Amino acid sequence: MIVSSVRVLYADTDQMGVASHAAALRWFEQARAEWLRRLGCTYRDIEESGLMMPIYELAVRYHRPVRYDQQLNLSAELELPGRVRVLFHYEIADLQSGELLVSGKTGHATINKSGRPRPLPDDLFTLLARGMAEQGETGGKAANARSAASRT
Amino acid sequence: MIVSSVRVLYADTDQMGVASHAAALRWFEQARAEWLRRLGCTYRDIEESGLMMPIYELAVRYHRPVRYDQQLNLSAELELPGRVRVLFHYEIADLQSGELLVSGKTGHATINKSGRPRPLPDDLFTLLARGMAEQGETGGKAANARSAASRT
Amino acid sequence: MIVSSVRVLYADTDQMGVASHAAALRWFEQARAEWLRRLGCTYRDIEESGLMMPIYELAVRYHRPVRYDQQLNLSAELELPGRVRVLFHYEIADLQSGELLVSGKTGHATINKSGRPRPLPDDLFTLLARGMAEQGETGGKAANARSAASRT
Amino acid sequence: MIVSSVRVLYADTDQMGVASHAAALRWFEQARAEWLRRLGCTYRDIEESGLMMPIYELAVRYHRPVRYDQQLNLSAELELPGRVRVLFHYEIADLQSGELLVSGKTGHATINKSGRPRPLPDDLFTLLARGMAEQGETGGKAANARSAASRT
Repeated sequence: MIVSSVRVLYADTDQMGVASHAAALRWFEQARAEWLRRLGCTYRDIEESGLMMPIYELAVRYHRPVRYDQQLNLSAELELPGRVRVLFHYEIADLQSGELLVSGKTGHATINKSGRPRPLPDDLFTLLARGMAEQGETGGKAANARSAASRT
Repeated sequence: MIVSSVRVLYADTDQMGVASHAAALRWFEQARAEWLRRLGCTYRDIEESGLMMPIYELAVRYHRPVRYDQQLNLSAELELPGRVRVLFHYEIADLQSGELLVSGKTGHATINKSGRPRPLPDDLFTLLARGMAEQGETGGKAANARSAASRT
Repeated sequence: MIVSSVRVLYADTDQMGVASHAAALRWFEQARAEWLRRLGCTYRDIEESGLMMPIYELAVRYHRPVRYDQQLNLSAELELPGRVRVLFHYEIADLQSGELLVSGKTGHATINKSGRPRPLPDDLFTLLARGMAEQGETGGKAANARSAASRT
Repeated sequence: MIVSSVRVLYADTDQMGVASHAAALRWFEQARAEWLRRLGCTYRDIEESGLMMPIYELAVRYHRPVRYDQQLNLSAELELPGRVRVLFHYEIADLQSGELLVSGKTGHATINKSGRPRPLPDDLFTLLARGMAEQGETGGKAANARSAASRT
């Protein structure tokens, strides 16, 4: 599910003449933030409620070089394997051609401000589960995105 | 094999109050650069010879929070599955306690300046293979590092 | 002249709980890129024509803390003190309230790919001069932005 | 006064083929952290005592291109214009040749955790004043660094 778009900054490049591998982490962050926002929720709200979702695992696959000033579509899909972990799968594609450039996933723990594990509260769990159900309904494109990302 | 050390900068932190997940990418880069330097070779030399080694896959596992100003030991080990791919495995540990904080790996393609696949030239392949053999000889610690990283 | 907007990423924050001072450099870059794009020109085009515009001086003034997820308006204005230097002045303001958060400027040299000074070619100089004239015509707001930035 | 050294990472470069202007901010941070550490004090200690020193102004001058893998000497000098502001001046030079590459300064406010102005406490003010006196005694080199940086 395409949730946002972005343009590659010069600051994202390195001397190989293309976007650095680190730039993908910013695109992933923007994608999951906008996935949440579509649901009427923000990660800022979540943190202010006392729940933090640090990344405990990250995987990225770089399919094609990404160029300076290129416009990208950012896709994200949620996977919810219980109440103490949240996974996001991502696809970064060229905005014009739709060509897949980068895919990946992040795994998030759910902790309180002291760093102790804290299960997702009921209301947030219900909201995320609803968002997960809706992303599936958008059909073929989303399902493809999901399976491509999970291959990484 | 510990190849370098580094101190966590304030610029590496985010508002969660610990090092951002992106910081690991800098530590990995420093680790593989120093792994090469120990062999009498630098990535700069490799690029100047016309060979580039862009990352095509990245995996990171965050075991424990990393704090501002913490001193880290950076370990790297090479895996050489042929002449067109180079893998590095990493372990980031607390310099004092040795506690494992982050592990991961990067997969690198070998290409020429036009972006076409280019196998590792003989002299570089031989050098890397020698480095890989030597890291194995340092024994238990290195082997553990390798297997821990490959679990990510 | 407001040329673009952006939302503060978590990756832009540090453990002080607000956007890091380094984040302003990305906002400045986006502002000058979009200033150029409005003129029907891109920095990518400029570089592809063989002209590079590295920053030789930078000044930033942080007026108020910038928060995670805050939406920002990015303003830029050009100053053209000849054919071998290009200056941009910036203002970063809260998108809703208009409150000034960060201001600054960057000075750019004009060089060729070998790093030698190269004056702005006629067509680009004419285009930039036209853009500079037009930004002045938009009146009070722009003039204020300019004078505020130049105070940094 | 040279307080530390660092090697330029690939992550510090951009597609201009040299270190990005943003990289200087990391070198400045490392320089002021090590300036403090020489005095037996760390910025981490300062923050843990409840005092924060956010940057309110930044100026950088880029004298020469900085290359990937180049080794840099980092110099810093303190200026203490009272109890509510702290200024650092920096010089970044090639480790081998001593050639000046980047200079600059950062101005820091002193605030408490709520963001309210808070003057430097007596013990820290005395310590910083002593450090400032000692840096002057090291003589010509340091004085030159100071006056060069203040020209930015």
